[in-house]
Amino acid sequence: MEASEKLKIIPLGGLGEVGRNMTVFEYNGKILIVDLGLKMPEESTPGIDYIIPNSAYLKGRDKDILGLICTHGHLDHIGAIPYTIYRIGNPPIFASKLTKALILKRQEDFPQKEKLHIVEVKPDDEINLGPFSVLFFKQTHNIPENLGLVIKTPIGNIFHTSDFKFDQNPVNDIPTDIEKLKELGKMGILLLMADSTGAENEGHSLSEAQIFENLEKIFSDIKGRIIASTFASHINRITQIVNLSEKYNRKIFIAGKSMKDNVEIARNLKYIKTKKGTIQKLEAIPNYPDERITLICTGAQGEPDASLMKIASGEFKYLKIKKGDTVIFSSSIVPGNERAVQVLKDNFYRQGAKVFHYQMMDIHASGHAYQEELKEMIKIVNPKFYMPIHGQVSMLIRNAELAQEVGLKPENTICAENGQVIIATPEKVFISKERVQANYVLVDGLGVGDVGEVVLRDRQALAKDGIFVIVVVVDRETGRVKGSPDIISRGFVYLRESKDLLKDARKLVIKIVEGASQSGGAVNWGYIKEEIKEKVGSFLFSRTKRRPMVISVLIEV
Amino acid sequence: MEASEKLKIIPLGGLGEVGRNMTVFEYNGKILIVDLGLKMPEESTPGIDYIIPNSAYLKGRDKDILGLICTHGHLDHIGAIPYTIYRIGNPPIFASKLTKALILKRQEDFPQKEKLHIVEVKPDDEINLGPFSVLFFKQTHNIPENLGLVIKTPIGNIFHTSDFKFDQNPVNDIPTDIEKLKELGKMGILLLMADSTGAENEGHSLSEAQIFENLEKIFSDIKGRIIASTFASHINRITQIVNLSEKYNRKIFIAGKSMKDNVEIARNLKYIKTKKGTIQKLEAIPNYPDERITLICTGAQGEPDASLMKIASGEFKYLKIKKGDTVIFSSSIVPGNERAVQVLKDNFYRQGAKVFHYQMMDIHASGHAYQEELKEMIKIVNPKFYMPIHGQVSMLIRNAELAQEVGLKPENTICAENGQVIIATPEKVFISKERVQANYVLVDGLGVGDVGEVVLRDRQALAKDGIFVIVVVVDRETGRVKGSPDIISRGFVYLRESKDLLKDARKLVIKIVEGASQSGGAVNWGYIKEEIKEKVGSFLFSRTKRRPMVISVLIEV
Repeated sequence: MEASEKLKIIPLGGLGEVGRNMTVFEYNGKILIVDLGLKMPEESTPGIDYIIPNSAYLKGRDKDILGLICTHGHLDHIGAIPYTIYRIGNPPIFASKLTKALILKRQEDFPQKEKLHIVEVKPDDEINLGPFSVLFFKQTHNIPENLGLVIKTPIGNIFHTSDFKFDQNPVNDIPTDIEKLKELGKMGILLLMADSTGAENEGHSLSEAQIFENLEKIFSDIKGRIIASTFASHINRITQIVNLSEKYNRKIFIAGKSMKDNVEIARNLKYIKTKKGTIQKLEAIPNYPDERITLICTGAQGEPDASLMKIASGEFKYLKIKKGDTVIFSSSIVPGNERAVQVLKDNFYRQGAKVFHYQMMDIHASGHAYQEELKEMIKIVNPKFYMPIHGQVSMLIRNAELAQEVGLKPENTICAENGQVIIATPEKVFISKERVQANYVLVDGLGVGDVGEVVLRDRQALAKDGIFVIVVVVDRETGRVKGSPDIISRGFVYLRESKDLLKDARKLVIKIVEGASQSGGAVNWGYIKEEIKEKVGSFLFSRTKRRPMVISVLIEV
Repeated sequence: MEASEKLKIIPLGGLGEVGRNMTVFEYNGKILIVDLGLKMPEESTPGIDYIIPNSAYLKGRDKDILGLICTHGHLDHIGAIPYTIYRIGNPPIFASKLTKALILKRQEDFPQKEKLHIVEVKPDDEINLGPFSVLFFKQTHNIPENLGLVIKTPIGNIFHTSDFKFDQNPVNDIPTDIEKLKELGKMGILLLMADSTGAENEGHSLSEAQIFENLEKIFSDIKGRIIASTFASHINRITQIVNLSEKYNRKIFIAGKSMKDNVEIARNLKYIKTKKGTIQKLEAIPNYPDERITLICTGAQGEPDASLMKIASGEFKYLKIKKGDTVIFSSSIVPGNERAVQVLKDNFYRQGAKVFHYQMMDIHASGHAYQEELKEMIKIVNPKFYMPIHGQVSMLIRNAELAQEVGLKPENTICAENGQVIIATPEKVFISKERVQANYVLVDGLGVGDVGEVVLRDRQALAKDGIFVIVVVVDRETGRVKGSPDIISRGFVYLRESKDLLKDARKLVIKIVEGASQSGGAVNWGYIKEEIKEKVGSFLFSRTKRRPMVISVLIEV
């Protein structure tokens, strides 16, 4: 091997955050990408639809990009495809059958875009891509057809766990194949890259079989209607609810486009098997007695536009909550959504519904390995180096500590950040000094990357204290203000009840403008605008202790 | 007793929410108020400082209001005083010495306001107020001098728990006096009103002694600097950290105004006792080796303006984080703040600090009774009726279920909402059909109650897609647009990169205005404005899939 021969590993998303997963592997200029996911917007990104990885590093490298591998069909692994894939030359995508179906379903929202090239892969397949060869294997998660990867490279084998958990009793899936993992470990693994999402949780994640048992307790007890909510992408959980509904002689009604889409895909691929007539149109709800109704919907995170919120607020036309109804929240709460979920639950309680959520009863299991599972994985794979991926910094660090607890040296555990370039040689894996761009790219409507710091800062300022626009018409000859300045204000004060404030603001504006325009000499309009901004700003603050954005338009006639 | 003689209990805040506690007791037109608290703003109330109870029901009743009792010094029980007390005639306030000091400290921010009249009370005091007589007793919480109440009325005794927990090993406080509670129960209690905040938690809350032990493990291990954050109002926890610092020979440095204020108050009242020289000015940090430094600060909720955030972001001038530092988050996370706290923790991890938070180790205990404590309280007090207070709907309902589990009849447990009027007679306590105003009153700068739905809705819309203001000057004689319309936009697109969009928008505006103004007959400016709003709105949406607020100003010259 030449001294120049080294593998670069560049995480462009997913480190120091949950979501937006994307990793670049580069050898001798040839590039392989694993996952291309999105992240949901945050408090600091108002009005944004999605946050995606920055692909600037790949610009102009279309010819070198050999392919994109998608480990599984969750949006944090496939969601950025429609926005980013064309910027990197629309390379072939390698994915399992279900993952492919989910990618294509999402692509229907972008009909004008070029066709994707998706190659279907399955466990034990091996594909050759230039200097890379990728061996796929089955990993248990909460969606079927999740694939782990062994990426064989000239400098050694990289083991990528994808998201995973160990589950010997999964539902709608085959148990984790420990023997297979051992076999892969025996190939000799230079670097293990492992999911960190569950690394702060002690012990072992719950088995889906346990969840099924608890859900069954609810189904066997409840005589009224059941409204069951979870993520649309949580195919395994949806299957459990469908199966229990059939067992307890309930018809299934599905609300929400993403839930309908995913159930359709899962049925086509036989993940959800129902008898004829089990799934019914929403319009048919009135035709069945309460004890025969299960409604499956999204919205367990308190999302404002989801079906569950509409049901809670009485805006869902097919079903109004009444005493005797039972609402099941079968998903964990994504951090930041706690308050929205509490408000939603309270809304159901107020209307007399029973509520089950995962804090009361184990009706949700994480799809991510907890500490004992991670340690087991490390022992099985027995890598020389270990690199935590997928998670907040606190999770990555805890995951690295776990590796150290089972014997890896601290210098052999790599806690990297997005944009860092990790160099791997057969002897050593380390973080280099090189850095590439890895900041947020924001998707807002049709704009990808056009909303930046300035627009976000303005949105935040507008949300806080609103805006105050002053339009002044000045007579060019006399320098006097014509008529009364127009004031447009939104989000600041209730204008009808603030007449005195507006009157005094107008007076102040006239004084500023005429003071400057009548002072003789050339009128410096830029100066006057600054004066208005500052003095009217101070005036409004002194009267209200609020700081709206103050903007003036000066028109000479 | 006359048939007309009944007690009205009117919760104006604190039911169906955590915070903003306020309850009105009314007998024969005479009014007693318990607590007058605030709540922190929510996602749906951008730019707001605080949310307080609506006192409209009390308007014009100044003469009938006999007094306000504040159970303890937390802001959700005293925080609305500066905004509301003058609207109800500045009645006398009854509070413990510490609560009084906290109320007065806060009042310093309102120097122009009339003086408050605060009467100091202590456990076993009894005050007579018209038809009411109030007996105070000690209740354990996480702030000293918390008082429970027995409100004696002509129709029976009402037992009000305040916020409470049972703790036989508190720190800096005397243990819960179960015998005393039994004695009070023997007086015969018609109605028990009990704190619901902890009602969804199984078992028994942790004792502060346990927390102290765990904190001591950290203090005895750590050799570097300790940065300990908690609520400024959590006087007992602060005391623990002070005591441990002295024990382990550390100087104490205090950051943040509210923390400084509260430590000063607690020292004046001897709740915090330190040797001379233990508490040092921030400027003296460089004079001590790392192992002798404890910094106490607020900000464990990820609040953007608090000291901890400044320390994390490197903006705190007295201390920059370095490897070897330890950051302790000694408070639970208020729902909704999870993401902010995670970002904050990650920031510390990234800089090489160790982080301890309550999910890793029991270094925070709730101040609120868990299920077993609530059941014990109900059994001790043995009331005829039970009314859960202080909590989300889910907590109130769970609390009522607990009462039923220990033998109360469902019809004797009262789950009410803010604004409902509860009628109590010696025989029966029930929710009447009467309702009073109890919606949010928003405090924003100097405005109390002036920000309503319209302003909030505008702020939310502005935060989402920004604003687009068009100023058009029209020649009165020709009906033609003079020059090019001015466009002011914020929070929508980055203007410098949107020149084509702006050009096309201007063209469209000119077309709309001239089409209408030149069509002959009187010009309907209102119609033109609507046209601009609608057509420019659609145009911008078609080009960007965003919907900024579109506003036009038409000027005839």
